[in-house]
Amino acid sequence: MPTRLSNYFLRTLREDPADAEVASHRLLVRAGYIRRQAPGVFAWLPLGLRVKAKIEAIIREEMTNAGAHEVHFPALLPREPYEATNRWTEYGDGLFRLQDRKGADYLLAPTHEEVFTLLVKDLYNSYKDLPLSIYQIQDKYRDEARPRAGLLRGREFTMKDAYSFDISDEGLDASYQAQRDAYERIFTRLGLEYVIVKADAGAMGGSKSEEFLHPTVVGEDTFVRSAGGYAANVEAFTTVAPEPTPIDGLPDAEVFDSPNTPTIATLVDLANANHPRPDGREWTAADTLKNVVLALVHVDGTRELVIVGLPGDREVEMKRIEVAFAPAEVEPATEADFAKHPGLVKGYIGPWSPDGAVLGEASTTGIRYLVDPRVVDGTEWITGANLDQKHVFGLIAGRDFVADGTIEASNVLPGDPAPDGSGPVELARGMEIGHVFQLGRKYAEVLGLKVLDENGKLATVTMGSYGIGVTRILAIIAEGNNDDKGLVWPASIAPFDVHVVATGRDQVAFDLAEQLAGDLERARLEVLYDDRPKVSPGVKFGDAELIGVPRILIVGRGAADGEVELWDRRTGERQTLPAADAVAALVG
Amino acid sequence: MPTRLSNYFLRTLREDPADAEVASHRLLVRAGYIRRQAPGVFAWLPLGLRVKAKIEAIIREEMTNAGAHEVHFPALLPREPYEATNRWTEYGDGLFRLQDRKGADYLLAPTHEEVFTLLVKDLYNSYKDLPLSIYQIQDKYRDEARPRAGLLRGREFTMKDAYSFDISDEGLDASYQAQRDAYERIFTRLGLEYVIVKADAGAMGGSKSEEFLHPTVVGEDTFVRSAGGYAANVEAFTTVAPEPTPIDGLPDAEVFDSPNTPTIATLVDLANANHPRPDGREWTAADTLKNVVLALVHVDGTRELVIVGLPGDREVEMKRIEVAFAPAEVEPATEADFAKHPGLVKGYIGPWSPDGAVLGEASTTGIRYLVDPRVVDGTEWITGANLDQKHVFGLIAGRDFVADGTIEASNVLPGDPAPDGSGPVELARGMEIGHVFQLGRKYAEVLGLKVLDENGKLATVTMGSYGIGVTRILAIIAEGNNDDKGLVWPASIAPFDVHVVATGRDQVAFDLAEQLAGDLERARLEVLYDDRPKVSPGVKFGDAELIGVPRILIVGRGAADGEVELWDRRTGERQTLPAADAVAALVG
Repeated sequence: MPTRLSNYFLRTLREDPADAEVASHRLLVRAGYIRRQAPGVFAWLPLGLRVKAKIEAIIREEMTNAGAHEVHFPALLPREPYEATNRWTEYGDGLFRLQDRKGADYLLAPTHEEVFTLLVKDLYNSYKDLPLSIYQIQDKYRDEARPRAGLLRGREFTMKDAYSFDISDEGLDASYQAQRDAYERIFTRLGLEYVIVKADAGAMGGSKSEEFLHPTVVGEDTFVRSAGGYAANVEAFTTVAPEPTPIDGLPDAEVFDSPNTPTIATLVDLANANHPRPDGREWTAADTLKNVVLALVHVDGTRELVIVGLPGDREVEMKRIEVAFAPAEVEPATEADFAKHPGLVKGYIGPWSPDGAVLGEASTTGIRYLVDPRVVDGTEWITGANLDQKHVFGLIAGRDFVADGTIEASNVLPGDPAPDGSGPVELARGMEIGHVFQLGRKYAEVLGLKVLDENGKLATVTMGSYGIGVTRILAIIAEGNNDDKGLVWPASIAPFDVHVVATGRDQVAFDLAEQLAGDLERARLEVLYDDRPKVSPGVKFGDAELIGVPRILIVGRGAADGEVELWDRRTGERQTLPAADAVAALVG
Repeated sequence: MPTRLSNYFLRTLREDPADAEVASHRLLVRAGYIRRQAPGVFAWLPLGLRVKAKIEAIIREEMTNAGAHEVHFPALLPREPYEATNRWTEYGDGLFRLQDRKGADYLLAPTHEEVFTLLVKDLYNSYKDLPLSIYQIQDKYRDEARPRAGLLRGREFTMKDAYSFDISDEGLDASYQAQRDAYERIFTRLGLEYVIVKADAGAMGGSKSEEFLHPTVVGEDTFVRSAGGYAANVEAFTTVAPEPTPIDGLPDAEVFDSPNTPTIATLVDLANANHPRPDGREWTAADTLKNVVLALVHVDGTRELVIVGLPGDREVEMKRIEVAFAPAEVEPATEADFAKHPGLVKGYIGPWSPDGAVLGEASTTGIRYLVDPRVVDGTEWITGANLDQKHVFGLIAGRDFVADGTIEASNVLPGDPAPDGSGPVELARGMEIGHVFQLGRKYAEVLGLKVLDENGKLATVTMGSYGIGVTRILAIIAEGNNDDKGLVWPASIAPFDVHVVATGRDQVAFDLAEQLAGDLERARLEVLYDDRPKVSPGVKFGDAELIGVPRILIVGRGAADGEVELWDRRTGERQTLPAADAVAALVG
């Protein structure tokens, strides 16, 4: 039986929801797919549930093709496994925590590495049991600081998360590749453009990681790519450092007065005016060394000041800094932090002063000093002289100061060289839709997942973790498939195959529409039939455009003459054809 | 492709889990269907997930047949709607509560009346939009004091909950009947015996309620039924009160010494020995009036003492008391409670003493006195005289004491008359598998769900609530379908249609099994194929019996002669047949 709009649970709305910033949020609410319950928490209405089920079905098929078995874990889990891996603490405010009536600690799981690891430990004990890939499609929870953009960043969301278990590194590579291949098939079937980018693997202690990003202007992630095929998210991008150059014979550093230089640009102008380079080339921002004071809050609660030196034409990229210092949290240094270090002259901080090293090796401050990889030995810098209203030029890395290490803290700029030599990169924005990750043995070691190897000895299992954001994907597809009238679903996941619209007051039209809707269902198409009496054609067409079923069959004025109209939602084309041909045209 | 046991995620266990009290728990764990994560919280392994999905599919079909539309709410919900209906408080310790990072209160929903009501309020505004029935299949949470028996009483469990919305009482009756009919079809398709019993509707403020109970000795609920067709749970059973009899001319009450009468039996013996009835009939326990002191803890936290008088051959039935006093909680009275009422002589409490009324009208204590419905005017009782070591006989209800009301507090005994005149009842044990409930206008009133009626006036909507415990049903079916070897699933929800077992070391057998497994899958049967090499036939047969797929196809020694064996898991019958006939035999 076709689904009849006259008694379907659906109300389309004329007004955009007040909090909707993006098209997917606006249209999914207005077209009756989802309804907000709390910030970042939504109920699924019948239309939305149908689209979600279709996405899940495609994912399930490809997981099965990849040899993965489906399981299902609860959202409510005990603290202990997450305590063992320290994520109970590391997740910070992002974790929903609660207690049961006996005071035992629980969480709403944001991801399930721990309990999958324990499940396999529980049931398996031999290398013969491996490889194993298991997955679930399940509702997860993260207490986002700023839930936003509807389903794009919610606090409850559905994910497919898979985990692989292997005895050898080669096995992990194969399991990883099988999931990666499955992801490519899934996104292709969903008609979802994607870029596979190298991702930072460090935060989760793993060895290899790639993200599937959907390029979109509403994306939260910036990624870089070269024409030669390199792609990485900004966290994973690595700077190509220049070769060190000889220090011998370079002139001494010179301190100069630099009042009224609140910005890098004013400092550069001053240097060019008062201290031109001997070789005639103008100083640029890239010749300056900017020193940024940050406070790290370590997992144990201790606070550490750290100073990052980077070329003045770069900004600190917080995402890169956060990855570099994880699991510690990074904050701007406060007045109180500065007060504890009177040796730092705010506004004029540098690694050196006429009295000697201020930062880095032989430092007088004890503050860790990390520099951009471009600050190699022999490079020459204009930077603060650690004296009020004074800077220094001709300061030589490796001679006048030696940092405590390097850090990938700078933003990436278009034209930067790709680390694989494939040419200059460009920057683009994307939204993460999938993530494949070689966890390695970190979780298995902490949680004691060992099996007997071929020699009868206990060996730690190596793992992979693979995630797809189901509800996010749905929103991204909606985001990329709409126009000013409403949604335009790809056929593979549309809530219905055909939207039959009966119009007018002529009973002949309704009788014919009824018959065609039934015929289409018998031909195994899913039909939404707008059988509402006394609703104007304009309202019905508007609803059909808003809902976004890709093919609309209009049965109206021409019905008496045995004619119907086929309306392509995406192109807007309408084609009149004999009613007798309609089913064949839609099935074909 | 058939599912191959050689790489399926499954380990059967030899040992029963230590905490398993019932067969379903023991076998679902041992056969690899579920795995415990925390008390009352389980992960679903592949086999379990398949059975669960089949039950859900049957429920979905029948919900669609009943005209209900599927939606899906989050488990995490804000406090406010539950605060409005007072259930935030009333659920007490049974509710999982938590806060988000901003300190806002949330709960893990144990049921969804509130948010369904608000959803309809949000989207609908006219009587023309009704009737409406919507449902979800969703994971719910209740922080049970004693999670037990595996899935039978968990803290996380899957439910189908449906809600109906109507403008008129007749509409509600029709929606209720449609769900009730659907439940009958669902349980019939699942092969699940059920009894529909009248349930108490008061606790949720509704008007009509029935439970679907599955009769089983492991059931937690007692219900009563008569040969004439009456059925009710004990909470809903109503006592048939005798007609009042004339009081005039009855002899005065007589106080008598009653030392050493700690029990009703000793009191009756003493009365028969020292104070025989004038008519020669012996006193029995039913002639005594037992007065039980209870403390009510009201929702506002206040504590009230109440005394319940019931015939001495009856026990207080806590479930009936709890329903009678809900939402107040009932506790035994404490020494402190007694200390506040020195007028009560413990062990000898009665509504009367030689000094006058102690309880009920004209009471000296101010304590509410409620009696069993059998205590009608003119009935004669032996009860405490409210004097140390003294009782009274010939105490006449309506003359010597007048209670403040009646209460259904007594246990039901076999042979008690059914309230509908259909004869004496018997008692049986059952497990609730479904519940249909006319909520009426309670939730709609509190949450303001009104629509415009035919006259353009706002009218409050009337609602029904209908629940089926999906995971509980799965456990109950397992509970009723097993033997000493393992599970024996009904075909409608078995994880696979056929379990093909290849045995022996003969490659011919494995080749033939492989071919038959493929043929069966092509014939649209779901096949679990035990292709494990080097596993003994005994182990394979044991696993097949434990897992419980109803039809097992053994391909072994006879394979060389083109013969296979068909094994009926339930009857144990084995039948040899030509391999060429196997598919037809199994499809047929």
